[in-house]
Amino acid sequence: MPLTLSPHFSSEPSSQCDSVWRGATLVTMRDGKYNLIENGAIAVSGGQILWIGPDADCPDYPHAIEHEFDGGIITPGLVDCHTHLVFGGNRSAEFEQRLNGVSYAEIAAAGGGILSTVNATRAASEDELLAQALFRLQPLLAEGITCVEIKSGYGLSVESEIKMLRVIRRLGHMLPVEVKSTCLAAHALPPEFKDRPDDYIQLICDTLLPAIAQENLADAVDAFCEHLAFSPEQVDRVFNAAKSLGLPVKLHAEQLSSLHGSALAARHHALSADHLEYATEDDAKAMAASGTVAVLLPGAYYLLRETQCPPVEHFRTHGVPMALASDANPGTSPALSLRLMLNMGCTLFRLTPEEALAGVTCHGARALGLQDSHGTLEAGKVADFIHWPLSRPAELVYWLGGQLPCTVIFRGHLRGEVRL
Amino acid sequence: MPLTLSPHFSSEPSSQCDSVWRGATLVTMRDGKYNLIENGAIAVSGGQILWIGPDADCPDYPHAIEHEFDGGIITPGLVDCHTHLVFGGNRSAEFEQRLNGVSYAEIAAAGGGILSTVNATRAASEDELLAQALFRLQPLLAEGITCVEIKSGYGLSVESEIKMLRVIRRLGHMLPVEVKSTCLAAHALPPEFKDRPDDYIQLICDTLLPAIAQENLADAVDAFCEHLAFSPEQVDRVFNAAKSLGLPVKLHAEQLSSLHGSALAARHHALSADHLEYATEDDAKAMAASGTVAVLLPGAYYLLRETQCPPVEHFRTHGVPMALASDANPGTSPALSLRLMLNMGCTLFRLTPEEALAGVTCHGARALGLQDSHGTLEAGKVADFIHWPLSRPAELVYWLGGQLPCTVIFRGHLRGEVRL
Ligand SMILES: [Zn+2]
Ligand SMILES: [Zn+2]
Repeated sequence: MPLTLSPHFSSEPSSQCDSVWRGATLVTMRDGKYNLIENGAIAVSGGQILWIGPDADCPDYPHAIEHEFDGGIITPGLVDCHTHLVFGGNRSAEFEQRLNGVSYAEIAAAGGGILSTVNATRAASEDELLAQALFRLQPLLAEGITCVEIKSGYGLSVESEIKMLRVIRRLGHMLPVEVKSTCLAAHALPPEFKDRPDDYIQLICDTLLPAIAQENLADAVDAFCEHLAFSPEQVDRVFNAAKSLGLPVKLHAEQLSSLHGSALAARHHALSADHLEYATEDDAKAMAASGTVAVLLPGAYYLLRETQCPPVEHFRTHGVPMALASDANPGTSPALSLRLMLNMGCTLFRLTPEEALAGVTCHGARALGLQDSHGTLEAGKVADFIHWPLSRPAELVYWLGGQLPCTVIFRGHLRGEVRL
Repeated sequence: MPLTLSPHFSSEPSSQCDSVWRGATLVTMRDGKYNLIENGAIAVSGGQILWIGPDADCPDYPHAIEHEFDGGIITPGLVDCHTHLVFGGNRSAEFEQRLNGVSYAEIAAAGGGILSTVNATRAASEDELLAQALFRLQPLLAEGITCVEIKSGYGLSVESEIKMLRVIRRLGHMLPVEVKSTCLAAHALPPEFKDRPDDYIQLICDTLLPAIAQENLADAVDAFCEHLAFSPEQVDRVFNAAKSLGLPVKLHAEQLSSLHGSALAARHHALSADHLEYATEDDAKAMAASGTVAVLLPGAYYLLRETQCPPVEHFRTHGVPMALASDANPGTSPALSLRLMLNMGCTLFRLTPEEALAGVTCHGARALGLQDSHGTLEAGKVADFIHWPLSRPAELVYWLGGQLPCTVIFRGHLRGEVRL
């Protein structure tokens, strides 16, 4: 049965259809399933999907531009809902030192680890950060990402966090990709606040968050709840401050140990709790009750050679939507491919290919609060979609690495190669 | 000290320099090490490296075309020395079934596994096989592969193996990449020879190998030595037949169990023994003595969720050169990226980035018998090299997935984007 106009969209003026796309199997991802429409058609109006269904049922749009594919599949645009793509420098030298046998302690003593990224980020200008982020975004765009979240969190001062968030906003204005900005000031303790974490939390709550809210620099607020970062009580203060400013929250939780940050996130109706290797069944129940998305990050799991998998079976049983993301960051996941995360989600976490694809489309969108506008092929949603010369959606997961050819439609328009 | 002309090359007419490439740090990979030349220059003549060294010492070539990079690094062209890129169909449906809980036994009973690839390969025409292989080669070429080995082994009959090898030869003629062809008829037992493996081995030795030698369809002969494939005695017969035809040999050995196929390969002075998860220190010693390269294949290790690592420390101790390859194949490693294998070689097998890069350059070339012409930046070698806008070679390993921008020079000429 063809999908009909959503009530949301039908209230807009929509009689004009700009373009129609035919000739491929539609992988709609409606309700988190493939929900295929063979030999489908998508009619686009004003950057939104006006109509979608079997080509045979497609209304006549006499003024629309016609696009005909010769087979293949069309999926929603891919959503990378958890990245740290803006940072100064990179940590390839440290990566190499570790493989040459230098210990973490020695590297830390020499100023390595996250503090080296903080120093490089603080030292970089906005333009330098922008140029480096563009270099890293290019491969993600080339493989079909149409929506990406980027976090701050390497500035760790009011000035530097605001600088990072401005860079993130500029990326969104410059590039044909939807960019969501997240303030992750509570990522690590800045050296200036050594032994005074509560003072830093107070700075975030009283000064930084109001400033970024005033400038509209962030779409959400995140924190890192872990022994080596911030306690649940400190995160709770950040979340309360964010909510008083009308900002939704999300959390890095249960990556290395079980502090029940994910249940805390659920109590705050967080958009998502992310990582979750050490989450429990009770955490999963709490997340299910609050509609909090579980964002799984197999790149960091792989690179850290972690052996504890996130409790996928509990998330399935209790109906927690699972998203997959690159976690692109200079330390634990210098990942420039979301498609690789599809394979890793299946190979390492035993997701099914359908779950993995839902994780980078509809559930990825939900982790950003975009479930009403993004992540599925349905009338009324943004016309972000991708044509792949593949025979079935599982091929997106099956091929390991490498860039599959694809044609990206962003807000209803063909997106050319983005050369940065 | 600048490298001088090799005796081999100086016997050629070489006074004319076609082009000079400057402005980057050269990662020469001489002797398997980075052996950097900062601010280097490469002079190219007739598709070969005429001179290489610090730019300050570069001779004057008044008629050469000048190319100037703005920093970055130049590495040798990448060598993928073990692939099965030619095959009919793919096994993404089976991949999905397994993740949906269908057992190997059920899949095999339904005609799945390698036999489904054999059937699809036998049913496909040469042109169909070619088109499918081109689709898979494109991402490898895009990331800088200038030399790739491709094996037969899904035909398993005289006619179908020859068909595969012809496709491999055609790929080499069509594409701006060096293609080495390997006959892997002893890959699996064809259904027609059920319970008669020795008869199939006899067919390979008496009929197939002489035919492919006559048509010059293969550069080497490979086999799969494993309980579920062929015994060391059967492999020995294949190797003797190959050697009597003047064809070098290589072997899939010690992937799932220890049959000492790698020591057998060493006795035959094989170019390489590949996989090697279950190789022993004695195997390593035998390989070192014969100069047999250890080809490590982390893609299959990763996808099979193997936990036994190849004995990297023994290979290091005894001086066995280690190569890294994609093992691109439809069953255990549908890998379309050699750069991903660099990261997996380090993350999973604990190679150093320098060892990993040697594995896809000089040692990869040695595994194909091309150590005198490929794999390092040295005078007299083929002018296959890549410019990367990166600050250090470890970045090639550090970034996980995604396609880094690069400029490829193949046989002395700029290789444009290969659209297939
Ligand atoms: Zn993160
Ligand atoms: Zn193989």
